[in-house]
Amino acid sequence: MFDPFQLKSLTGRGIMTSSKRKPATKLAGYFLIIMLLSLAIAVPGQIGTRKELKVPDILGFVTLKCDFHMHTVFSDGLVWPEVRVEEMWCEGYDAFSITDHVEYHPFSEDVSTDLNRSYELAKPDAEALGLLLIRGAEITRMKPPGHFNTLFLSDANLLNVEDFKEAMRAAHDQGAFIIWNHPGWPDDKEEWYPIHTELYEEGLLQGIEVVNGDTYYPSAHRWALEKKLTMFGNSDIHVPTAMEYDIAAGRHKPVTLVFAKERTAEAIKEALLARRTVVWSIDNLIGEEQYLRPIFDAAVEILTGEVELHGLHHSPIQIRNTCDVPFKLELVEGDDSLRVPAQFILYPDRTIRLSVRAAGAELSGEKEVEIRYRVTNLLIAPNEGMQVAFKLRVKFLSSTN
Amino acid sequence: MFDPFQLKSLTGRGIMTSSKRKPATKLAGYFLIIMLLSLAIAVPGQIGTRKELKVPDILGFVTLKCDFHMHTVFSDGLVWPEVRVEEMWCEGYDAFSITDHVEYHPFSEDVSTDLNRSYELAKPDAEALGLLLIRGAEITRMKPPGHFNTLFLSDANLLNVEDFKEAMRAAHDQGAFIIWNHPGWPDDKEEWYPIHTELYEEGLLQGIEVVNGDTYYPSAHRWALEKKLTMFGNSDIHVPTAMEYDIAAGRHKPVTLVFAKERTAEAIKEALLARRTVVWSIDNLIGEEQYLRPIFDAAVEILTGEVELHGLHHSPIQIRNTCDVPFKLELVEGDDSLRVPAQFILYPDRTIRLSVRAAGAELSGEKEVEIRYRVTNLLIAPNEGMQVAFKLRVKFLSSTN
Amino acid sequence: MFDPFQLKSLTGRGIMTSSKRKPATKLAGYFLIIMLLSLAIAVPGQIGTRKELKVPDILGFVTLKCDFHMHTVFSDGLVWPEVRVEEMWCEGYDAFSITDHVEYHPFSEDVSTDLNRSYELAKPDAEALGLLLIRGAEITRMKPPGHFNTLFLSDANLLNVEDFKEAMRAAHDQGAFIIWNHPGWPDDKEEWYPIHTELYEEGLLQGIEVVNGDTYYPSAHRWALEKKLTMFGNSDIHVPTAMEYDIAAGRHKPVTLVFAKERTAEAIKEALLARRTVVWSIDNLIGEEQYLRPIFDAAVEILTGEVELHGLHHSPIQIRNTCDVPFKLELVEGDDSLRVPAQFILYPDRTIRLSVRAAGAELSGEKEVEIRYRVTNLLIAPNEGMQVAFKLRVKFLSSTN
Amino acid sequence: MFDPFQLKSLTGRGIMTSSKRKPATKLAGYFLIIMLLSLAIAVPGQIGTRKELKVPDILGFVTLKCDFHMHTVFSDGLVWPEVRVEEMWCEGYDAFSITDHVEYHPFSEDVSTDLNRSYELAKPDAEALGLLLIRGAEITRMKPPGHFNTLFLSDANLLNVEDFKEAMRAAHDQGAFIIWNHPGWPDDKEEWYPIHTELYEEGLLQGIEVVNGDTYYPSAHRWALEKKLTMFGNSDIHVPTAMEYDIAAGRHKPVTLVFAKERTAEAIKEALLARRTVVWSIDNLIGEEQYLRPIFDAAVEILTGEVELHGLHHSPIQIRNTCDVPFKLELVEGDDSLRVPAQFILYPDRTIRLSVRAAGAELSGEKEVEIRYRVTNLLIAPNEGMQVAFKLRVKFLSSTN
Repeated sequence: MFDPFQLKSLTGRGIMTSSKRKPATKLAGYFLIIMLLSLAIAVPGQIGTRKELKVPDILGFVTLKCDFHMHTVFSDGLVWPEVRVEEMWCEGYDAFSITDHVEYHPFSEDVSTDLNRSYELAKPDAEALGLLLIRGAEITRMKPPGHFNTLFLSDANLLNVEDFKEAMRAAHDQGAFIIWNHPGWPDDKEEWYPIHTELYEEGLLQGIEVVNGDTYYPSAHRWALEKKLTMFGNSDIHVPTAMEYDIAAGRHKPVTLVFAKERTAEAIKEALLARRTVVWSIDNLIGEEQYLRPIFDAAVEILTGEVELHGLHHSPIQIRNTCDVPFKLELVEGDDSLRVPAQFILYPDRTIRLSVRAAGAELSGEKEVEIRYRVTNLLIAPNEGMQVAFKLRVKFLSSTN
Repeated sequence: MFDPFQLKSLTGRGIMTSSKRKPATKLAGYFLIIMLLSLAIAVPGQIGTRKELKVPDILGFVTLKCDFHMHTVFSDGLVWPEVRVEEMWCEGYDAFSITDHVEYHPFSEDVSTDLNRSYELAKPDAEALGLLLIRGAEITRMKPPGHFNTLFLSDANLLNVEDFKEAMRAAHDQGAFIIWNHPGWPDDKEEWYPIHTELYEEGLLQGIEVVNGDTYYPSAHRWALEKKLTMFGNSDIHVPTAMEYDIAAGRHKPVTLVFAKERTAEAIKEALLARRTVVWSIDNLIGEEQYLRPIFDAAVEILTGEVELHGLHHSPIQIRNTCDVPFKLELVEGDDSLRVPAQFILYPDRTIRLSVRAAGAELSGEKEVEIRYRVTNLLIAPNEGMQVAFKLRVKFLSSTN
Repeated sequence: MFDPFQLKSLTGRGIMTSSKRKPATKLAGYFLIIMLLSLAIAVPGQIGTRKELKVPDILGFVTLKCDFHMHTVFSDGLVWPEVRVEEMWCEGYDAFSITDHVEYHPFSEDVSTDLNRSYELAKPDAEALGLLLIRGAEITRMKPPGHFNTLFLSDANLLNVEDFKEAMRAAHDQGAFIIWNHPGWPDDKEEWYPIHTELYEEGLLQGIEVVNGDTYYPSAHRWALEKKLTMFGNSDIHVPTAMEYDIAAGRHKPVTLVFAKERTAEAIKEALLARRTVVWSIDNLIGEEQYLRPIFDAAVEILTGEVELHGLHHSPIQIRNTCDVPFKLELVEGDDSLRVPAQFILYPDRTIRLSVRAAGAELSGEKEVEIRYRVTNLLIAPNEGMQVAFKLRVKFLSSTN
Repeated sequence: MFDPFQLKSLTGRGIMTSSKRKPATKLAGYFLIIMLLSLAIAVPGQIGTRKELKVPDILGFVTLKCDFHMHTVFSDGLVWPEVRVEEMWCEGYDAFSITDHVEYHPFSEDVSTDLNRSYELAKPDAEALGLLLIRGAEITRMKPPGHFNTLFLSDANLLNVEDFKEAMRAAHDQGAFIIWNHPGWPDDKEEWYPIHTELYEEGLLQGIEVVNGDTYYPSAHRWALEKKLTMFGNSDIHVPTAMEYDIAAGRHKPVTLVFAKERTAEAIKEALLARRTVVWSIDNLIGEEQYLRPIFDAAVEILTGEVELHGLHHSPIQIRNTCDVPFKLELVEGDDSLRVPAQFILYPDRTIRLSVRAAGAELSGEKEVEIRYRVTNLLIAPNEGMQVAFKLRVKFLSSTN
């Protein structure tokens, strides 16, 4: 008979629940201790935990956390497709794409080269968990032109043709959205070649990876702004995630934030075409100010809007950050009457206390003060942090009389 | 001149900002690295971080996180009062009381025995940080009768009299709320002595520590329910908090949750008199069902209200817990048609995935199913976890035909 | 050209280092931050870190850390064989066996069923890293008889025959060492069936898993002692390790400690035949006293062998544990003259301080005292912790005169 | 009666173990869970844990871990002296000095100003734990001249005189070793004033803080080298340590490593006079090459001294670091025939794997290769990392024929 606590068949509905199959883990016995110790760990199977990636919804859109680039054993990745589903769910993603190489199959001696298999194997599990899985594939060439992800395919096998442009057109004909991957690799040059102009002009190049893995491409960032390409931050993960990222300790892979009209694959496609994305890489958000500003405004709250300053004594200001992105601030322009910190960090899910004081002991009276900071990790262009202003009502109580 | 980044005088306004005084920390130089590494650490001074203790507001009240029992060098504690303020702020508390022993002053050779000093020294810092500080003191005798915390005093020195009952009355005359501390200590017996009946009948015993430090007193829990005493969970901390609790790793001291009409000391007193408290000790909430149930209901959301079951295959159910308390569930009563987990934990700030399946492959049709679990760490009485019910709409798809 | 920092081809020498192949990670740019944050993380590829599992060598043998049970996509595991090599190295193991199911291939539609492939693919990488890889396979039947690991095979494909005993004999003919896996599963009964007697008597059953995953089988423990079977603790891992175990936070999978004459596969086989193993599961060591005692003695040092006791004041005793296993002690028999802790834990890689004091203030003089504790997590039989004795030279200084 | 598990009186022998005194913690009840969770936490009292700071002994000396600068409530620190003893023991130090300000007593309204009290109160506890406590005090003036620590005093009160030089001489007359503290503070200028020359020439200036808290003073580093001053790295901690440093997560305060002939206060003094110290600040060791080189050599072992290279395939090299200091290496000079990593980190207590490969596929034959790296965090002068060389025996196996 079945143990109600038996772990779910990891390989999903496609596989008969054979009595010969051992569940992946049996927690009986040491159950409670394990549970106590492993809070943050993704235990796959019947009982699992998901840590949401907290970034606020903005401008009436739902903020979907996506990764559109990863591999499995069906090209040169080192895991079965089901592992990618489990990882995406546990790590807090909403949507993803498995993008095995169309032409590169180092394991072909042992593994099928059918390009639709990774999607087909992952689909039932993704659906059961409420994740949006988008069929994709990576067209892979030396540079130029390089590697390209094609999303929203109907049949990935049709892309397996010798001529590069024909492969791109085969994707386009299926209504694919096409992204230039890691534009500084594999030739270690961030260069926009003539072939990229050709692709761009033919409508075969709509998006670009500004971030791949933990590598940021400033040129790609600039091209995206100039040429109106959609910005992506994708993991391109080949190994099990937890081998590269200490997820249990709160790290995360790159995320493409998509501001979608609803939680559907179609809405994601509409948002990608409308360029409503922001890249979240390590601690950085990279994107247009029209999206970064409402994120900051929705996440950050000044709890101490008014402050009384006695002579030269310091008074605390409390600011809360409710999202999972830290904000790193550097002073741009203060106020002559007030001493404020030159820099500070609004940590994720924390209230921060700063101290301010009057510039002189003789100051008195009440005024509204505006202090401008640069948020160095909200990049609206390469090396350009978005500026924000804090307004404070200050009452100076002179200590000189 | 003053460095805008200079750390706040830890000893507050009462002390001249002397140029001889070195700031407690200088972060220049290694600033960023330190910041990266020490996210969760309470750095006192000009820049500090506070981790909120997330428990939802309920029944129209604000849920205040309080600790009404701790010590400083003004009795037998090992820290200066200002450290207690800093700890309370960083650890996410809203209100607290320093309760130095009235009669026990092991450091009297070196430290003042004025019983109001710890309050007076802590008050300006607490106020600046928006913390409610309640003047208190601990009347300390061998058992019986034991130790008693007196809160909302106006002058703690008046309690320093030889006769025990006179000391209690001196507190009562100031309008104090009186709590029996760690009722199983110092004689290691949880016994209700005749003196406690006397105190209780004279109105000198209104509350009781069900938890002190990490020790739970089941008898105190029972007495609180029988005699309508207000339940408390206090730290009684003597050392720096981080010496006993790994705060940086997410542990916490005991908390008395107070359901108050507003964030004021008066509102806290009203709530204590009305017995609107719940004790949060390690992972446990201890209190009356009328408060525990709305906390659970506000914190827990079933994301998968409907599920389709194919033959004997498992299907996932997702449940989210948005508060900082885990909930540990054990099956009480299921449904004949459904196999569900015998136990699971809803971790704080996580979405949990369970798997359910049909009891038989031949089942078909649709029905509403109710499953009852016991939440073993929501204690409505000693050894009695509160029961909760989950309702699921289930569609059985037979695999036999 | 090649970047000297390019990551190693994860799929090893068997695969051409194609310029189309993207390295698994590119650390440039955020390099230092990543490095700072990910100390404990196993980054596969060109730069990786290994955390040794510290258990002392004993009795002139080298203590090898082994796991003889795990799966890959070549049966029902979810990773490519290379991942197992990487995990074993990073987690501090010395030797391991990939034991894919002989008969169960849920991925046979997409993956080769050649039973030697996982070994062949893993071998070059294991060798390059100095790990001992032992060719193995799991014979898989309903219970009785259950599942059996066969180690030191020359051709795993020869085991794929219908008749169970023929399969066992095919392994035996290759000189295999045969282990009964998870004896309480898949029928959830810890029962020694007649078939096991048959196998045992025919020499087809030499070892038994006392621990599988995090499940401990007390009956298997008893049978191992009675029937002189070699004890094993194996992971049986199917998913990527870090999905089930928070390795980065210091957790570990089960380990079979093998006390071998040297670091070779042959020496391991000799040690298994001679039953020189101990099982390390979570915090527990399970094995014979002849091996557990020298481990304890080599790892634990009393730093304070002599202590002066003044009246009833406490004095500290310092004890150091230099291995990665904690030791949990409970008092068995003390000394009338001395008060000692009823229980304590010697944490891994820590010095522990206990306090002792005279039983009476009037005691004086000097004596050698022996205190006996039970180490509850060193199991020499089910529920039977090994006893240890501490000798202390105590000088009592009376405070009464 | 006394509970054998009762926690040690934190305030030591000087205080009667009154039955009115509550132990700091009672672990009964939740004992095991607490223990499991709080491995790294310093639980003061009867049961505590100490994490050794692992730096090897060198050149026949014992390497003592010291902090010669910290405060208590007897000047402007925020803890009772006993807390400093507990911290030093738990954090792995061997010797320390409490150096309360001679002239600055912000708490004088409430706390004794006797300058010997913090030493006298800490001494019995330090002794019982085997820690070396050195009587010290801080002479505190505006800059110039600044603040000076005086160690090995016999009566600190004699230093409380108005004239600065008289105070210094009063220390010198007691045989004190004198250190210039945080030379860039309180005037935020790293300047060697004429007064420092005067002190130096009169023999009143023997050591200098190259590191104070987490601030590094490059000028002080230079002066120490030029003028043969002993280098110090001290914490100057005012708050409870765990408020500033996440000790439980493995961080540490600055350490002055003293290479002493034996573990006594006298031997420390001899070593300070002989300038045998190295400063350990965060990840950096700062000191003379004659001490840094033997530390590196004793801690680092190349496990793979020989390597075979096949064509252009990478081969792994394993290097082990057995101490608690990481080593961060940058390539200085390689070998034309070999590609090696441009940089890597030898993490504390880890084995690291690097990959190397032949520079050309046609290379063949065998040779000894020397690769030079700079260890950027072993500072033999400001901005000058110590160089180290690795020797490898390489066998090239050409893949071209």
